[in-house]
Amino acid sequence: MAREKAVRETYTELAQVMLIHQANAAGNIHGGEIMKLMDSAAGVCAIKHSGKICVTARVDELQFHRPIYVGSLVTCTSKVVYVGKSSMEIYVLVEVEDLASGRPREKALSGYFTMVALDKSGRPTEVPGLKIETEEEQTLFEEGRARYKSYKLKREKGKN
Amino acid sequence: MAREKAVRETYTELAQVMLIHQANAAGNIHGGEIMKLMDSAAGVCAIKHSGKICVTARVDELQFHRPIYVGSLVTCTSKVVYVGKSSMEIYVLVEVEDLASGRPREKALSGYFTMVALDKSGRPTEVPGLKIETEEEQTLFEEGRARYKSYKLKREKGKN
Amino acid sequence: MAREKAVRETYTELAQVMLIHQANAAGNIHGGEIMKLMDSAAGVCAIKHSGKICVTARVDELQFHRPIYVGSLVTCTSKVVYVGKSSMEIYVLVEVEDLASGRPREKALSGYFTMVALDKSGRPTEVPGLKIETEEEQTLFEEGRARYKSYKLKREKGKN
Amino acid sequence: MAREKAVRETYTELAQVMLIHQANAAGNIHGGEIMKLMDSAAGVCAIKHSGKICVTARVDELQFHRPIYVGSLVTCTSKVVYVGKSSMEIYVLVEVEDLASGRPREKALSGYFTMVALDKSGRPTEVPGLKIETEEEQTLFEEGRARYKSYKLKREKGKN
Amino acid sequence: MAREKAVRETYTELAQVMLIHQANAAGNIHGGEIMKLMDSAAGVCAIKHSGKICVTARVDELQFHRPIYVGSLVTCTSKVVYVGKSSMEIYVLVEVEDLASGRPREKALSGYFTMVALDKSGRPTEVPGLKIETEEEQTLFEEGRARYKSYKLKREKGKN
Amino acid sequence: MAREKAVRETYTELAQVMLIHQANAAGNIHGGEIMKLMDSAAGVCAIKHSGKICVTARVDELQFHRPIYVGSLVTCTSKVVYVGKSSMEIYVLVEVEDLASGRPREKALSGYFTMVALDKSGRPTEVPGLKIETEEEQTLFEEGRARYKSYKLKREKGKN
Repeated sequence: MAREKAVRETYTELAQVMLIHQANAAGNIHGGEIMKLMDSAAGVCAIKHSGKICVTARVDELQFHRPIYVGSLVTCTSKVVYVGKSSMEIYVLVEVEDLASGRPREKALSGYFTMVALDKSGRPTEVPGLKIETEEEQTLFEEGRARYKSYKLKREKGKN
Repeated sequence: MAREKAVRETYTELAQVMLIHQANAAGNIHGGEIMKLMDSAAGVCAIKHSGKICVTARVDELQFHRPIYVGSLVTCTSKVVYVGKSSMEIYVLVEVEDLASGRPREKALSGYFTMVALDKSGRPTEVPGLKIETEEEQTLFEEGRARYKSYKLKREKGKN
Repeated sequence: MAREKAVRETYTELAQVMLIHQANAAGNIHGGEIMKLMDSAAGVCAIKHSGKICVTARVDELQFHRPIYVGSLVTCTSKVVYVGKSSMEIYVLVEVEDLASGRPREKALSGYFTMVALDKSGRPTEVPGLKIETEEEQTLFEEGRARYKSYKLKREKGKN
Repeated sequence: MAREKAVRETYTELAQVMLIHQANAAGNIHGGEIMKLMDSAAGVCAIKHSGKICVTARVDELQFHRPIYVGSLVTCTSKVVYVGKSSMEIYVLVEVEDLASGRPREKALSGYFTMVALDKSGRPTEVPGLKIETEEEQTLFEEGRARYKSYKLKREKGKN
Repeated sequence: MAREKAVRETYTELAQVMLIHQANAAGNIHGGEIMKLMDSAAGVCAIKHSGKICVTARVDELQFHRPIYVGSLVTCTSKVVYVGKSSMEIYVLVEVEDLASGRPREKALSGYFTMVALDKSGRPTEVPGLKIETEEEQTLFEEGRARYKSYKLKREKGKN
Repeated sequence: MAREKAVRETYTELAQVMLIHQANAAGNIHGGEIMKLMDSAAGVCAIKHSGKICVTARVDELQFHRPIYVGSLVTCTSKVVYVGKSSMEIYVLVEVEDLASGRPREKALSGYFTMVALDKSGRPTEVPGLKIETEEEQTLFEEGRARYKSYKLKREKGKN
């Protein structure tokens, strides 16, 4: 199996200026457009960790903290926080910046994306382990494991 | 306050044929495009229930059961399952149909979207109660309440 | 040849919330975006009837009854009303709903789309007959036949 | 009322290279994308004739002669052929060119679009007359009048 | 080698109505959308001249003379002005027209695009010579040669 | 006038995964889509420097070093290199990364964008000076000044 990868090796940053064609009927950026951006950031992160084609398996605890406006600069960062056998849980954070004002970036959304690595025939395949280097990473890893176990339990109970 | 609404009054169905411009780099439909569709379905549902402008506040337990291909007919149904003071929890189900084969629809994704109703100045505003008419609705309502309380708890603990 | 299909078996319903990126320069939904949606609904209907790849051959009597605004819920229903040898005439109806007001759906457009079924080499191929079950279906079938004959006549006269 | 306009003064030509994002599930250009282009060409033509905001009221005898492929150069020409009181009937022709081959343009679609001019409060408003300068224009004008009368008749009969 | 082509044989005209989905955050048409249109016009021109697949190699002296608004008719013309061994320098001009006012077209942008013709394995391949027929064409050709030489010089100096 | 800004304060990084809807007819990413991304990066940079609304005035020496494929991660960095009275010259660099291979980023394009700051009535307005902190910045500044003077000269000669 491939060597372990450190959390920092999976770190990804996407950024773009949001435009009118991404607006909802109220004139703000469509929540779905932001989720699409987060899904891309999680995907890049998963490919960096696994070197494989990856697909989204779950999204959890996606929380919207504030609306995003047309013209804002949106930065989306992601990192692997937990790995199962063929799955990776990725924390994705979205921050916004109103360019002209010079105010610091503000948190707009965050959430956990579970990505699964696939082999060439499209079946789940093993991913490298995650090398934990800091205490914060350790905490996130343990929380990730707790979520992973609770999803598994729900699935076995036939729910969800 | 507005009269209670029944779950069936909030029922919403969106459907579209997925096209190439919605594909990811692997040629399947981008997960983010599907989330965008789900977000729209949740939004319609929330407006039907509350009669107000609504914004997405959370997404939980979004689970991808199978990939979606270019040319598939995607049907996205949604209904309110739980209401808090100004928030509504909405169950969104995505099903796909390969048109030529004549096989029945298959479940592709499901998830819970929490929408918040806003008054004209953009502040959260009270929503009608939810009239429960069947046992299944009762079960979903209780599960919704459990999730609602656990989110609240996490928020108070400063997490998430 | 495949067994006859009933009109109700071909019934199709697509629905979506119209967004700003679909607007024309005046800020309403671009007529072409609605035609695109109608063309998709006719296509789904034709595939359901024939089980083949289908292409658009004609559009007739497309009539715009009222404008459609950004944020409206648009529902597009379609059904086969007449079949020739390899062609199907499909009635497509577009209705709009202003979500917050709770007013009933209103008719916005309607039209007839002629789709042709193709075999694997891209040549027109025979389609199943249409089983008529109600008087209304009979009337629509006869009107369809009249249009079909008049198109044929025009084509033979070298016009159009 | 504004002075009469000659058919040649309303002549409009739009042209674009069709791209992958405009393809249908089969990989050819989506019929709806072409209709959208035709609708734009009809709109430009109507504004040139009337000097007013114009909306699409009808589409008739839209006929697809051949498929259009990704990468083709599509040229869409339009001209007013008949005018009623506040409506203009516009002939729209779509031709395609496969660039590398050097073969001449081929007819791909044609159809008649009826546009209505609106005043500032959004009500139908009178349009200039049409100055006929050639025999071909005269023939098209008379055919247009025949269609105009038949639409009117159908409308009065409560059909369509 | 293929016979020389005259400048007028390479002449290309694309035109479209600019829509809201092409706007920037300020509500005008995004500069990048216009560049995309210019790049298409240069591409068509290069294919007409060479009969090969062509890729963009350089853009120079792209100058914005005035903003472009939603709803404007944009016409983009292009012609080959100079040819090297496998490269073609193309002048692209963008003009805008506010439809209702009836004012004449105004220049909005212009620039020089260098396209390179590729053979089937993707390597640069020789293009036909350019037949100069007018004095203006001669002047543009000589200016093109001067730019071509200065680019080459810069490249050899390791700059750019 | 506002205080001088250092080059590093204007540094901007946008990044995105390129998708199929951004492809040209050959299946690679459309050059125009990349220019659109570069224009956004230049715009963010100009707003950071000036705190004003900015528009694109010129693009020069835009050079394509290699094609960009669907699925690539594209990173676009920009920084102010020279300032005139109301204009800023910005160097924009585009790099691509093939995610799975783990190869380092490669340069794909670069170019100079001249942006002009506007006051509230849309007229050019003065921008802060540029604080030069390194030798490389000094070299770029001097090259920028040379280009600025040569553009001015051409403009005065009535060319371009």
